[in-house]
Amino acid sequence: MVRIAILGATGYTALELIKLLLRHPEVKITAVTSRQEGRLPLSGVHPSLTGRLDLYLEELSPEAVSEQCECAMLCLPHAASAEAAKALLARGVRVIDFSADYRLNDAETYRKWYEHEHPDAERLGKTPYGLPELFGAQIPNANLVANPGCYPTSAILPLAPLLKAGWIEPEDIIVDSKSGVSGAGRTPKLNTHFPECNESIAAYNVGKHRHQPEIEQILGRATGKNVQVIFTPHLTPMDRGILSVIYARPTRSLTESEVLGCLREFYAGQPFIRVVNHLPTTKDTSHTNFVDITARIVKNRVVLISAEDNLIKGASGAAVQNFNLMFGFAETTALL
Amino acid sequence: MVRIAILGATGYTALELIKLLLRHPEVKITAVTSRQEGRLPLSGVHPSLTGRLDLYLEELSPEAVSEQCECAMLCLPHAASAEAAKALLARGVRVIDFSADYRLNDAETYRKWYEHEHPDAERLGKTPYGLPELFGAQIPNANLVANPGCYPTSAILPLAPLLKAGWIEPEDIIVDSKSGVSGAGRTPKLNTHFPECNESIAAYNVGKHRHQPEIEQILGRATGKNVQVIFTPHLTPMDRGILSVIYARPTRSLTESEVLGCLREFYAGQPFIRVVNHLPTTKDTSHTNFVDITARIVKNRVVLISAEDNLIKGASGAAVQNFNLMFGFAETTALL
Amino acid sequence: MVRIAILGATGYTALELIKLLLRHPEVKITAVTSRQEGRLPLSGVHPSLTGRLDLYLEELSPEAVSEQCECAMLCLPHAASAEAAKALLARGVRVIDFSADYRLNDAETYRKWYEHEHPDAERLGKTPYGLPELFGAQIPNANLVANPGCYPTSAILPLAPLLKAGWIEPEDIIVDSKSGVSGAGRTPKLNTHFPECNESIAAYNVGKHRHQPEIEQILGRATGKNVQVIFTPHLTPMDRGILSVIYARPTRSLTESEVLGCLREFYAGQPFIRVVNHLPTTKDTSHTNFVDITARIVKNRVVLISAEDNLIKGASGAAVQNFNLMFGFAETTALL
Amino acid sequence: MVRIAILGATGYTALELIKLLLRHPEVKITAVTSRQEGRLPLSGVHPSLTGRLDLYLEELSPEAVSEQCECAMLCLPHAASAEAAKALLARGVRVIDFSADYRLNDAETYRKWYEHEHPDAERLGKTPYGLPELFGAQIPNANLVANPGCYPTSAILPLAPLLKAGWIEPEDIIVDSKSGVSGAGRTPKLNTHFPECNESIAAYNVGKHRHQPEIEQILGRATGKNVQVIFTPHLTPMDRGILSVIYARPTRSLTESEVLGCLREFYAGQPFIRVVNHLPTTKDTSHTNFVDITARIVKNRVVLISAEDNLIKGASGAAVQNFNLMFGFAETTALL
Repeated sequence: MVRIAILGATGYTALELIKLLLRHPEVKITAVTSRQEGRLPLSGVHPSLTGRLDLYLEELSPEAVSEQCECAMLCLPHAASAEAAKALLARGVRVIDFSADYRLNDAETYRKWYEHEHPDAERLGKTPYGLPELFGAQIPNANLVANPGCYPTSAILPLAPLLKAGWIEPEDIIVDSKSGVSGAGRTPKLNTHFPECNESIAAYNVGKHRHQPEIEQILGRATGKNVQVIFTPHLTPMDRGILSVIYARPTRSLTESEVLGCLREFYAGQPFIRVVNHLPTTKDTSHTNFVDITARIVKNRVVLISAEDNLIKGASGAAVQNFNLMFGFAETTALL
Repeated sequence: MVRIAILGATGYTALELIKLLLRHPEVKITAVTSRQEGRLPLSGVHPSLTGRLDLYLEELSPEAVSEQCECAMLCLPHAASAEAAKALLARGVRVIDFSADYRLNDAETYRKWYEHEHPDAERLGKTPYGLPELFGAQIPNANLVANPGCYPTSAILPLAPLLKAGWIEPEDIIVDSKSGVSGAGRTPKLNTHFPECNESIAAYNVGKHRHQPEIEQILGRATGKNVQVIFTPHLTPMDRGILSVIYARPTRSLTESEVLGCLREFYAGQPFIRVVNHLPTTKDTSHTNFVDITARIVKNRVVLISAEDNLIKGASGAAVQNFNLMFGFAETTALL
Repeated sequence: MVRIAILGATGYTALELIKLLLRHPEVKITAVTSRQEGRLPLSGVHPSLTGRLDLYLEELSPEAVSEQCECAMLCLPHAASAEAAKALLARGVRVIDFSADYRLNDAETYRKWYEHEHPDAERLGKTPYGLPELFGAQIPNANLVANPGCYPTSAILPLAPLLKAGWIEPEDIIVDSKSGVSGAGRTPKLNTHFPECNESIAAYNVGKHRHQPEIEQILGRATGKNVQVIFTPHLTPMDRGILSVIYARPTRSLTESEVLGCLREFYAGQPFIRVVNHLPTTKDTSHTNFVDITARIVKNRVVLISAEDNLIKGASGAAVQNFNLMFGFAETTALL
Repeated sequence: MVRIAILGATGYTALELIKLLLRHPEVKITAVTSRQEGRLPLSGVHPSLTGRLDLYLEELSPEAVSEQCECAMLCLPHAASAEAAKALLARGVRVIDFSADYRLNDAETYRKWYEHEHPDAERLGKTPYGLPELFGAQIPNANLVANPGCYPTSAILPLAPLLKAGWIEPEDIIVDSKSGVSGAGRTPKLNTHFPECNESIAAYNVGKHRHQPEIEQILGRATGKNVQVIFTPHLTPMDRGILSVIYARPTRSLTESEVLGCLREFYAGQPFIRVVNHLPTTKDTSHTNFVDITARIVKNRVVLISAEDNLIKGASGAAVQNFNLMFGFAETTALL
């Protein structure tokens, strides 16, 4: 039985994580923390957990956390997350970090996009990026894993095989992504107030979203290319799900079956990647850890389409998948 | 041309009101106020008004307002509204008040339900309640009209004719109402955050909603009975609309066609009441000033069903209807 | 390993059932049938099952089915379901029937509400109703279980304890229920076409819904009283969930804590009933087998509120719960 | 008073058209036709029109129609529409055609994309395309106007000014469009069944949508260039609205303010085009005839974003705008 502490347990990713871990036969959640609330029953913040996990939200020091767990899952804001990770790693706790703190290659890019001095810069570029489908070999022995961003997962997985094969231009990629509103977190704001975003779709942070450098750097790491993407995220009136439609320029004439074949070969044996012939909907992957991917050739472009659940494969499911690899459990435990 | 000022113009009822008034051939909106924002273009707060009304939100004194309008529409919080009304009425401005301040009969009920000493108690019980279908005679000469609550409109209109006829028991009435989320206002809160209320329905304020005494007192005023209702409001995952299903006990054996006939006769000639045979949906009345009403006999009960748009007939449309009557325009101007 | 066949596998309850059973460690789904489609991969009809269950939809005779399973789950239309059940039971297959065919007490009520002669009338009134919280003792040894209707589950569970205690009048009960659209099935119709039912709520089948006699008869069976309910179902713009608000007349003065205490005592030890103090939302129970119940006293009424997922506790989760009891597995297997 | 007949009045565009025309002071709707239904009150098909337009749906010959109107608005399927138009034009009725029949340049493209021999091919290429912002000069004297497709309107308006200026490459354009479900029409189908498309987003007809050649040919007509677009439509879980995000390659280095300036200059004085600085949401234009357009420079691309209501500016509002121009009314009559 592995004891897990969840730091920052009031949001949607933590809630989803708890629901997944409650199904894991080898896990015991021992602590859930929050800085905003006082000592409060977890079910007071998440009524859906009533009767399922009798813990109190507490504010705990890294020391106190380290006594209660072998693994800490950090659902904290960026910068705060790296602070916590550093302290916990020093005390021998293995860490899966949901924030962006350990995803990028270097402190300068971090500073530019997150407007913050990185509190643990030396681990940048050395921390495995938690997409087992691409970096699986680095994860089992890692003490720290950077859990991927929701949008990057949906963009990196379809693109990596074709980039690696040299079949598409690495510097002419457009990623047009549509996300459910849970991706914006649980703090009420005007743009996520129901009567504002319901019955409406809008692009946001056009050309300015922090997931753009993450997509570029991780694709670079996975394929050895200098990758440039134009990234447009959208807020879509649904709870969960990300659909990414990706426009790439082939380096030579390609057929649909060649592209699908390349994807299928690359992900053969991967339990959570489904390369499909039909056009996937986000609902096909809703409440699962699957990513559905397909491809079309339209005129002079390869159009790649991926669907995932932003809270599962885009966050908490990926974390459990990484956890399974780190602690020697079957990769799919609690995820099917 | 009647000049209108809108006080408290940042919310949904004000937005809807502006859209309706822009269609009114005899109206000019001259001022829009807000206390929270500084001087700001109205379209900065309501992007949908871009290019349609070139005004700035301002904080204006009653004196300044009174110089710019013949009629003020108050979309202010309770208590603040009565303060403003008092000052404007003293300066000769005619007022339509969207708040609950002038709807109830007496200061004590107001104090109990709104936890506030009424700032203008002597006008309570004397101010016409702005349902022209019931109190139409009082409105043309009024300087102050209390615009009805959204839920009360949906409950009072179906019940009044049957109560007046003595066909149902006045003290055994259950009103089960379902409202769209815009009814909760525009201030972001957790329970109206999209991923909380989307894909979910819930009752709230069961037995404690402030519209319960309003329904009882106004039905009392309209019918001369002592009316008691049990009122259960629900938050429904849609922008707008209220459906009220009302269970009443007949005082004698009734048929559906008798009940429908009573309703039809009572509302004959009323342009916005549609007594229908089918079961109405809120969408049938969406973006209109109509209320659709039907009735069924189920076992020993009369079941009344009404559908309305909470922002139009439940708020801003009713206000324009009252305005038309107060200023001598055709009742339906800007409303069809 | 118990082999299960699912008859009528193209709808939402079958899809949900398959997803639950895929998590059951002691189950193997061996056959999925459909009469409308030809031989077709299951994932062609349910893309979300791609790669998760490699079966073909087939039209199979009862004989063929009986060779492939110990247990058949019937997601068939009424009447067709009883025909299939009869044939399968004769061949020694244990059956869980999702249709209404075996829920009622007698053939006459069935004929009146379902306009059909019952094909297996002698089993009526003798077949256990699959609510283990009320009829748990009858289920382990049953060869046939009538899986409950979605609305009845939400009405019966809150009412039974109070009726049994004699605390509420059995003939003065109003059940006002709001359901997500999946409850209407998967066959496209105008009233469930997205632009018709989205952004709209409506009552339907007022006083005429087939779940009314089911609620009355099963409550009668559970409590020995003659129960009469007025039942109003609503179509709510969400995928799943049922909220029932129930108005009952107390036989004596009651407090909220007495009512909650009665419910808590009655359901003590039941893993899926959560008696809560707060007002539950359907989302609290979404994608789970839980039913959340609370109570309020409003004037002279007990107001009971229940929330459930219509596809899980209202259909497929209940079936798995019944299956676990019938085949000797822990009641919560695959359901937490 | 101009008499208007609406042919094919059972769908969403006809409903929206009727609501707009009921506000038009110079219009009388004299006939509404349907081939599927028998003689039926219009409000039986559109309950929201109860009490607003007392007409019966009828099946009428072109002759009968021509006696009842000066203008016919055709909401008919393609091919059927051209048949009707031909017959009505021959009888002196002026026609606004909502179908795609008269939008394309030539019979061959029509045959390829609509798989039909054009019934009135000689009018192809000569019929004005009903975007007054681009072809306003041709509309006042036209007897036949091809009302634009919903997606093409959202793509053509932002692109035309920049293409005309020669600032973007005409053959390297990607249009990624997201539409509400009403765009799919009113006939119930599985993919528009509420529980299928709610809480889900998906691309459809990737590289195969009939609006692609329309966008290309009309942009060609407006700008004199050979235009090539890659077009990806999406079904978004909302009733109405289209958001198009367009990726174009500049022919030289451009700034955001240059692009916005070009758009503003081009559309100066146009009452329904709003070039805005902020990122528009579809809700900003909901229930209006406005199109909101903005632009961003992202890396080496111009990103154009447009929002419209697919049923208003994308269909019925455009028709009324064209009608106003054809019959000499102010362009904005009934549209503000």
